[in-house]
Amino acid sequence: MRPPVIILNEPQLAENIGAAARVMANFGLSELRLVRPRDGWPQDRAWASASGANWPLDEARVFDRLEAAVADLTLVLATTARPRETQLPVWTPREAADVLHDAVGQDKAVGLLFGGERAGLETADIALCHGIVTVPVDERFRSLNLAQAVALNCYEWRMGVSDRPRAAFAHNIAERAPLEVQVGLYEQLEAELDKAGFFHPPEKRPSMVRNLRVALGRAAMTEQEVATFRGVITALSRGRGRVLEKLARKARELDGLKPEGGE
Amino acid sequence: MRPPVIILNEPQLAENIGAAARVMANFGLSELRLVRPRDGWPQDRAWASASGANWPLDEARVFDRLEAAVADLTLVLATTARPRETQLPVWTPREAADVLHDAVGQDKAVGLLFGGERAGLETADIALCHGIVTVPVDERFRSLNLAQAVALNCYEWRMGVSDRPRAAFAHNIAERAPLEVQVGLYEQLEAELDKAGFFHPPEKRPSMVRNLRVALGRAAMTEQEVATFRGVITALSRGRGRVLEKLARKARELDGLKPEGGE
Repeated sequence: MRPPVIILNEPQLAENIGAAARVMANFGLSELRLVRPRDGWPQDRAWASASGANWPLDEARVFDRLEAAVADLTLVLATTARPRETQLPVWTPREAADVLHDAVGQDKAVGLLFGGERAGLETADIALCHGIVTVPVDERFRSLNLAQAVALNCYEWRMGVSDRPRAAFAHNIAERAPLEVQVGLYEQLEAELDKAGFFHPPEKRPSMVRNLRVALGRAAMTEQEVATFRGVITALSRGRGRVLEKLARKARELDGLKPEGGE
Repeated sequence: MRPPVIILNEPQLAENIGAAARVMANFGLSELRLVRPRDGWPQDRAWASASGANWPLDEARVFDRLEAAVADLTLVLATTARPRETQLPVWTPREAADVLHDAVGQDKAVGLLFGGERAGLETADIALCHGIVTVPVDERFRSLNLAQAVALNCYEWRMGVSDRPRAAFAHNIAERAPLEVQVGLYEQLEAELDKAGFFHPPEKRPSMVRNLRVALGRAAMTEQEVATFRGVITALSRGRGRVLEKLARKARELDGLKPEGGE
């Protein structure tokens, strides 16, 4: 499978070219093409801002004309902040990723075209393409950074590749302690709370126990975590034990001095 | 509807703070919080790189501690490139956007937490959060720029604004306590465990604290439940009601009778 080629038309800042290369690498893309980069090519600042994602830059191809840069591609989508007066279909990056995956699945070479920082794409550039990709930006602030636009589209491509079903809580459930282990924790806690006089008045004990169990159950603890919390209960209760012991000792000690006729 | 707060923990480069503000504006977010920005705040370079998206920067709030920066939020998700050994649920930005929308739909204040450029988030920071967001980057090049990570998450939030499938997490969020309430519970528990000599050996205290916080955080307690568990901790460590009161009364009563030279 050959991911989309990224084509930057008249990019101005080497930093953005490097940032685009970096995010291409993040999402498994590697073919970069530059049409008339303003400050020439190569430029060190591009490599500096790629943070080690050198290969898209090392192998970048430079073109004088956009027509030449897209010549070998079968499907090219133009990304613009503002859909033009055109009869091309307009997609979000998510929809565009589907379109691109369909084409790649049929062994077509595909590309995503981005305009320069200042002016974006001209209508003549867009007319070479097969569809328009528009990021759904807020009307109040439409100016999207070039590398960010590349990022969002590469991300959507990648999301289409990985397509991993990932149940939200799968991770937790995988290692969740069996119920008998969990109940052991509940019962230890409740026994200690009985001793501490926590369940008051007694007729409310069942509903209080229920509430504690529901909250702790939602934590979906592993066996290791249950063991840790059992240790917590023991540690806290021993602390209480010490307080009580001290008081009891004192009481015993003083008990002998209790005056006649005392309580 | 109040979009997520973006929290940058120990950001290093003002350019990235500005780029984050710009992309927040692109996708309709505006609340930015900075925890210990490396080079201080404000910094002109942030405004320069925001390209006119000044309002998130103008109104950015700066904090010394992450705990303070998230205190008023009810749901905070930590974005990390690499899911840690933790028992928090792990989501893609898309899944995370669903979770955030559910919470916001129930009038909860929510946030997305990002670590600094070099080191990302520490495990202790993540332990304050309720879930982990991981961008599905290519294994061969995982280093995602900070502002790009902000961009992808803000984009997914925006994509979810109009058209959104229901997430499974709703019931937990419904009445979830704000983080400052939750942190109050953690700190009470940890103080009591300190007294009880639970954290042993001392060098393991940070990881033990983290594990306890993660497990309790997953329970997604309501304020009422937090209050109940604070009562549980008090009862376990000091006893409650008759048991202790009776002994204490007795001790006080007898205290006046303490003999000279007594203990």
